[in-house]
Amino acid sequence: MRGKLSLFLLVPEVIFIILFGVFVQYDEKSGPSAINGTSSEEFHSLYPMFQDVHVMIFVGFGFLMTFLKRYGFGSVGFNLMLAAFVIQWAIIMRGCLDRDDIADGKIDINLESLLNADFACGAVLISFGAVLGVLSPVQLVVMAILEIVCYAVNEFVIISLLQISDIGGSMVIHAFGAYFGLAVSLLHWRKELENHHKEGTVYQSDIFAMIGTLFLFLFWPSFNAAPAAGTFAGERAVINTLYSLSAATVMSFALSSAVDKDGKLSMVHIQNATLAGGVAAGSVANLRVGPLGALIVGATAGALSVVGYKYITPALQRTFKLHDTCGVHNLHGMPGVLSGLAAVVFARYSSNSAFRDMNELESIYPGFKASGFDFQQQANMQIAGLAVTLGISIVGGLLTGLLLRAPFLDKLKSHALFDDDKNWLVDDDDTNTTSGGSGIAMAVIEEPRQDEVKENLDRNSTDGSVGSSLHEQMALAT
Amino acid sequence: MRGKLSLFLLVPEVIFIILFGVFVQYDEKSGPSAINGTSSEEFHSLYPMFQDVHVMIFVGFGFLMTFLKRYGFGSVGFNLMLAAFVIQWAIIMRGCLDRDDIADGKIDINLESLLNADFACGAVLISFGAVLGVLSPVQLVVMAILEIVCYAVNEFVIISLLQISDIGGSMVIHAFGAYFGLAVSLLHWRKELENHHKEGTVYQSDIFAMIGTLFLFLFWPSFNAAPAAGTFAGERAVINTLYSLSAATVMSFALSSAVDKDGKLSMVHIQNATLAGGVAAGSVANLRVGPLGALIVGATAGALSVVGYKYITPALQRTFKLHDTCGVHNLHGMPGVLSGLAAVVFARYSSNSAFRDMNELESIYPGFKASGFDFQQQANMQIAGLAVTLGISIVGGLLTGLLLRAPFLDKLKSHALFDDDKNWLVDDDDTNTTSGGSGIAMAVIEEPRQDEVKENLDRNSTDGSVGSSLHEQMALAT
Amino acid sequence: MRGKLSLFLLVPEVIFIILFGVFVQYDEKSGPSAINGTSSEEFHSLYPMFQDVHVMIFVGFGFLMTFLKRYGFGSVGFNLMLAAFVIQWAIIMRGCLDRDDIADGKIDINLESLLNADFACGAVLISFGAVLGVLSPVQLVVMAILEIVCYAVNEFVIISLLQISDIGGSMVIHAFGAYFGLAVSLLHWRKELENHHKEGTVYQSDIFAMIGTLFLFLFWPSFNAAPAAGTFAGERAVINTLYSLSAATVMSFALSSAVDKDGKLSMVHIQNATLAGGVAAGSVANLRVGPLGALIVGATAGALSVVGYKYITPALQRTFKLHDTCGVHNLHGMPGVLSGLAAVVFARYSSNSAFRDMNELESIYPGFKASGFDFQQQANMQIAGLAVTLGISIVGGLLTGLLLRAPFLDKLKSHALFDDDKNWLVDDDDTNTTSGGSGIAMAVIEEPRQDEVKENLDRNSTDGSVGSSLHEQMALAT
Repeated sequence: MRGKLSLFLLVPEVIFIILFGVFVQYDEKSGPSAINGTSSEEFHSLYPMFQDVHVMIFVGFGFLMTFLKRYGFGSVGFNLMLAAFVIQWAIIMRGCLDRDDIADGKIDINLESLLNADFACGAVLISFGAVLGVLSPVQLVVMAILEIVCYAVNEFVIISLLQISDIGGSMVIHAFGAYFGLAVSLLHWRKELENHHKEGTVYQSDIFAMIGTLFLFLFWPSFNAAPAAGTFAGERAVINTLYSLSAATVMSFALSSAVDKDGKLSMVHIQNATLAGGVAAGSVANLRVGPLGALIVGATAGALSVVGYKYITPALQRTFKLHDTCGVHNLHGMPGVLSGLAAVVFARYSSNSAFRDMNELESIYPGFKASGFDFQQQANMQIAGLAVTLGISIVGGLLTGLLLRAPFLDKLKSHALFDDDKNWLVDDDDTNTTSGGSGIAMAVIEEPRQDEVKENLDRNSTDGSVGSSLHEQMALAT
Repeated sequence: MRGKLSLFLLVPEVIFIILFGVFVQYDEKSGPSAINGTSSEEFHSLYPMFQDVHVMIFVGFGFLMTFLKRYGFGSVGFNLMLAAFVIQWAIIMRGCLDRDDIADGKIDINLESLLNADFACGAVLISFGAVLGVLSPVQLVVMAILEIVCYAVNEFVIISLLQISDIGGSMVIHAFGAYFGLAVSLLHWRKELENHHKEGTVYQSDIFAMIGTLFLFLFWPSFNAAPAAGTFAGERAVINTLYSLSAATVMSFALSSAVDKDGKLSMVHIQNATLAGGVAAGSVANLRVGPLGALIVGATAGALSVVGYKYITPALQRTFKLHDTCGVHNLHGMPGVLSGLAAVVFARYSSNSAFRDMNELESIYPGFKASGFDFQQQANMQIAGLAVTLGISIVGGLLTGLLLRAPFLDKLKSHALFDDDKNWLVDDDDTNTTSGGSGIAMAVIEEPRQDEVKENLDRNSTDGSVGSSLHEQMALAT
Repeated sequence: MRGKLSLFLLVPEVIFIILFGVFVQYDEKSGPSAINGTSSEEFHSLYPMFQDVHVMIFVGFGFLMTFLKRYGFGSVGFNLMLAAFVIQWAIIMRGCLDRDDIADGKIDINLESLLNADFACGAVLISFGAVLGVLSPVQLVVMAILEIVCYAVNEFVIISLLQISDIGGSMVIHAFGAYFGLAVSLLHWRKELENHHKEGTVYQSDIFAMIGTLFLFLFWPSFNAAPAAGTFAGERAVINTLYSLSAATVMSFALSSAVDKDGKLSMVHIQNATLAGGVAAGSVANLRVGPLGALIVGATAGALSVVGYKYITPALQRTFKLHDTCGVHNLHGMPGVLSGLAAVVFARYSSNSAFRDMNELESIYPGFKASGFDFQQQANMQIAGLAVTLGISIVGGLLTGLLLRAPFLDKLKSHALFDDDKNWLVDDDDTNTTSGGSGIAMAVIEEPRQDEVKENLDRNSTDGSVGSSLHEQMALAT
């Protein structure tokens, strides 16, 4: 309905502007002495990594979701809308839970908080992937508002209170975003989601999605290293993540071919499972797991992810009526949990010698200094952090999903599922491009076959299998 | 005509080579002592930002213009041609007006001059957007040559003489490029530009354009901050630009939906108005406008830009016969002027306390040191700079537009407007992909309907509404 | 056949994991003192350039090859597969020939070795371009394994033994990759490669390829400068490469138009010849060739490359039965040799005054210090290095090509050439999108024309000229 989306964007934006005016200020304490006016070295070691993450959020996530044949505008458009929205809202919500900011009543904004706001976008966009094409933009905005509240609380609990280590956010971002989105999706199941004819790809949309895949693949080392930019742990995070991704990619190709009856590769595996190595490296990227550890984690995640796409996602839909458009469970959910468990194992069986020195140890596990943790305690906290993340994301997602069923939130009609036409101005002739031009051809044939044509047109709009109906007709004709 | 474009490229290129040979040299004075041979720290704080700007010029501008259904080659191809051309020409023209270079008779080339050459490309590519699909490549090359002369003069006058502050080039680049291009366009009006059937999008071309949008969105903070890389003012420019863009994006979605009768979003708004926040932040990005100021400037620009696309551009075309293919008036023109005015207001109501220290003040407003300006005088200069920019761009554009009407410059025939076929080798079967395959279908139907078919074909080629003519025929058939 | 690709990926991956476990370790010697745990400044001057190169390898090469109408999945997919594979394998092979690594029995991994692994990927992906759509994925994996052995040997001989200078790898990477791939291709000639109807483009695929072109164009300065990141020679490499590319681009447009009978531009030239400037700058990028030298090298390479695409590649195919899908001979082969020769000339006619100081001279030509070279000897070594590169690449490529003819390596059947359908799950309706929807239209027309239709269908599948056959039929009908 005209005006509703505008309302759900304008009101929060006005509130953001007011809150920014009252509470947000440049962070001018940080950096070097103000005397020479030179910017901090920290800024320039972080900025290129920040921009890499920024590309992942807007181009990576946005284009990865363009694989649907008729939801390209929505994928890349709502991705932009949500990210631009959350990058403001996350500054405020995270500031409300930041001790320094609470102390002086002002939210300091600097490159690090922009990075953290981008990370928060990541969680929301993962959840968006679970319900891609299923929720209306109004529902998405409301979901983003509520999810960021849960996200900030979860981050505060596991990072600030439990003092866990999760540099690449495998728990905080990936597992959280995936299970939150899946919980929302569970409450928005409907019969039509089974084999919906628009929930498919066309040749070009699969190539568009590879733009997303590749930029995610390329910049994931920066994603996992950015919070430690400027330290040796950051350099390790780059190397570990890159090799975890490489192993995941080789395994994705190997298994994608292996699980198909004709040995053919599936684009959905290549677009997604290759990236599971980045998620799986997240919680251990800055640790000295060694190049060997990185390869093993990545290979496992890649394999797990292909198996997930092939067997687990369909099973979840059959069994639990759980629809997962992008398969975020396979790319972010399971690999995120895997990474969280790897971090538990590392902490449990680690020792001082696994760190360069005490400074590094205390910077990676701040609880050692702040609360006198030992490795056993750190491991316990890590597993508690994983449990808390799953708890908050699932409960938060269920409550949010329930609220999103409110009738005034513009639930999509059946025909509007996975279709840009509901929310976007789409030119008429576009339809022909993607449906193969059959419509026009049909319209000008002779009368005797009129019925057949109509039937054919109907069939097309029902199952989208223009090609197969053609083959049938060819068979009939001979 | 064969050979003409070659001639118009080869002759200048030979001249560039000669001029580079005689006048251009590496800048080896800058940087640290030559003793240890280590590169300057400045280089490494600037290089990542330079590359971000480089991506904006070649990928950002190039893909943003691929929205037209049959001008994708020209958009991304001529964008590359013009940028590669201008990046050489601008070094020479800007060198001719640089005091140091004039003094020693040599144009020093370094990373900073490459950045400034990229900025000059920006102005030309904005003008290209105003006449996209309307001018021939020969005309574009001539336009680029003349525009860079005007650009260098305007930059020299307002930056070196008037000593205005315009870090992100909202005046120097955006307003200049937009009004220059619009002035050229005014002199190339023709009746066929009204509702030309090829001046539209198809589904895939709108997604291609989003590649441009997103890379512009992502790297605009670098665009506005690069000239101040390595200073606190540069960090502020990143933060201000990013939040200005975020607010503009949320406002673009809100208003795009609000101005449509069915509440549907328009891709043209999302592709463009979202970026108005980057333009609008340009002249004030390095100033302490505060996060609040950044949001307000961005939100205003986003809203203004949507209104511009919806109401102002059509009105300009109706009233003044002013065609603006990419709507550069809405993305670069008005937001550029808005930013220039914001800079006037800031300078007028500012005080020493709005700067970290005198160093920062004098680096942002060099006239304070060089010419003893106060804030009132600075404000006056800012408004004079805006006026000069508008004057030079409009007069320069009109003169250039007049000259481009010279008959030997390969004016496009009507059928070649917005169509790659005139300038590019395009495979035959491509036509079918974008026209929906209707042609083939038409060719093999039975005789009795031959007339109807022909009529249909005609209609298609006239108004491009294949879809609607299909619907009519379907209605007739029942 | 199901399982074969899986086998050829899984077995090497398991071996990689074992070898990484036994031999590969983080390089923790480099960088500053471990006391404060701060990362090395070197890391942060190199990292942004490394990421630029990374983008070139995965996005640049991957998308550049998507120009084929039905091999987009294979282009961007196998590019990813090969790069992820080689980035592991190259670490091991290069380590086997590294003196330090051999000395302590451990392969040290750091950002520099990641960069070198990316460079090794470059060579393999160039070879992939020569046989794009012709070799099966199993053959590609075997080719990559063998090519990296030859690559590491060649690199060791010419860089470590002959002590040549080749900062951008014009010999090591580009000429090597091109002639290796061409030698492989020579042994996989088959009659069907002549004017294969699937070896063409469609409108959208040509635009996808421009994504690759542009990211290669943009980041080539980083490619040529990265090995010298942090030095003045690195800054020169950026400037030289950028201007070489600019001149090549202008020349590509000028000549592309000049060689066509109607003066039309060819996308294949714009996609490729523009980049020849990057290759041609490679061996001389860090030298003081001056802005003039950079422009001349680039302009020559751009012109040479267009001539190559227009005349040489077809001639090689006619005369030597040498098929070169991407024309790597024109983009990497000839420009690589040109660059190698330019480096010979520079060394021969150079003198101490062409370097900032002895440090720079000895860092660019290490043989001056290590082996007491003079400029004459350096020039001799440079030419020897070029000869060795051509020798190893051609002999290695021929032997590899021979081995790839082994019957169990899944040679493609004729109909599978240049077609994703053999290796990838492709949705049925996709066919219609790219073939222009003709199929469907054909299927529902009346009987009397059945023969004509069949003939038409046949013709389409033979020469792919749907459009032209349409025009013929239209002519017949009137």
